[in-house]
Amino acid sequence: MPEPINSLFPAVRIVLIETSHPGNIGATARAMKNMGLTRLVLVNPYDFPSEKAVARAVSAADLISSATVVSTLDEAIAGCQLVLGTSARNRRIPWPMLDPRGCGEKVVAEQANGGEIAILFGREDRGLKNEELQKCHFHINIPTGEAYSSLNLAMAVQVLCYELLQALLAKQGRADEALASGASAPEPVEQVWDQAYAAADTMEHLFAHLEETLIRVEFHDPENPRQLMNRLRRMFNRIRMDQMEVNIMRGFLTSVNKQAARKDVN
Amino acid sequence: MPEPINSLFPAVRIVLIETSHPGNIGATARAMKNMGLTRLVLVNPYDFPSEKAVARAVSAADLISSATVVSTLDEAIAGCQLVLGTSARNRRIPWPMLDPRGCGEKVVAEQANGGEIAILFGREDRGLKNEELQKCHFHINIPTGEAYSSLNLAMAVQVLCYELLQALLAKQGRADEALASGASAPEPVEQVWDQAYAAADTMEHLFAHLEETLIRVEFHDPENPRQLMNRLRRMFNRIRMDQMEVNIMRGFLTSVNKQAARKDVN
Repeated sequence: MPEPINSLFPAVRIVLIETSHPGNIGATARAMKNMGLTRLVLVNPYDFPSEKAVARAVSAADLISSATVVSTLDEAIAGCQLVLGTSARNRRIPWPMLDPRGCGEKVVAEQANGGEIAILFGREDRGLKNEELQKCHFHINIPTGEAYSSLNLAMAVQVLCYELLQALLAKQGRADEALASGASAPEPVEQVWDQAYAAADTMEHLFAHLEETLIRVEFHDPENPRQLMNRLRRMFNRIRMDQMEVNIMRGFLTSVNKQAARKDVN
Repeated sequence: MPEPINSLFPAVRIVLIETSHPGNIGATARAMKNMGLTRLVLVNPYDFPSEKAVARAVSAADLISSATVVSTLDEAIAGCQLVLGTSARNRRIPWPMLDPRGCGEKVVAEQANGGEIAILFGREDRGLKNEELQKCHFHINIPTGEAYSSLNLAMAVQVLCYELLQALLAKQGRADEALASGASAPEPVEQVWDQAYAAADTMEHLFAHLEETLIRVEFHDPENPRQLMNRLRRMFNRIRMDQMEVNIMRGFLTSVNKQAARKDVN
């Protein structure tokens, strides 16, 4: 993925999924560049490349030409340790939630810790699908008035990118203050973890291994799945597993499968 | 000026001056209604009424039809006790400044005090003129990245209206808390979950069941435990597991053990 210069958020990908209107892609690029973001990823855009997108981007046309186009969400979030998804609807199974301000703070802290971050935006008419939301560590809800709760896609991007920059400026302001005052002002401590967080593609492999094992030991019936994998995805994504924990779980699943195989031979 | 129902900001006028593109008027109406604002005033719009404005407003077309059109800024702000103007440029003579968050707080406080407020947005290409900015009590600057500082007009409206609603919700939240607690200490808002959280003894039973199973499938050697159970405890305790998640995990472990028992019989 080419890295445009002057990015304040080199670790953050804005991911638009199956966008219908190219004008929204252009308006997204402009909103991003206004707030110091540069990395735009498009999953199956309906009409792209498009002159409309370039026109609406105005001076952010460079973000349009450097945008990455992929055909699956998994490609878009490969390598990301933190995946956030915007959601207006209340889902049947609630998910850990952030408001836009909390999203800004979390993303800025994650980037400072060396993590790679994706923020997902769904289709203009139907948002993100459940299976897309289930890949997220947090859902983000933009508060609205009751009369009309559906924001235009690029407007939602604008609000979140605005809060990202606000959080970065606040963090820089605290750092500057600490420097000016002889490093005495306390900076909020970022939690340091002993292991790297697992990336999105690593988690997908774990979920596949887990589901296969659940079927093998006859705990899970794929013909009658109910909410089982959904609940397990929510649980493990809430944890934000580190790489060592994924290794442990996969080792355990491998042992279970080995034993099942021995039984089959008998 | 007709007063549409359901306004969270009955005292706030959004004033667009000499807007060139009717799409921006429509997008402004949508951004306003999303955030609970209703009163749109247009000073000498270039192309209005316009089908483009109505189309971009989507479900905020009522704000378009109730918009007030005037020919001078003085008419637009007549009766207002607080006038705020958005400005990207640094002017030669500095003016009292607010950032969007400060703007939200000031507007909400002013409305609560019975004041009438106008927020002015200038032309797409040249913003507000000096004589228009001089009618303002405060100038509002939206922080941006250095690479591209000019926001689309409706995006600027979106950011400010978002901060207005944030300030109103924060104020209402504080009022609700004060009411609920008899004005004592603020309580953190708990996210609503669909399941009860698991109790400590429930978790201990889960960990015992997990360890027993890990030994059974020969993944875990209690003679050489290393940090395995420690890491698994940290992992599952990092989230507050709910009762259903514990049930699922224990059901899975029971299935693994049943299969191992069948193998032993063979």
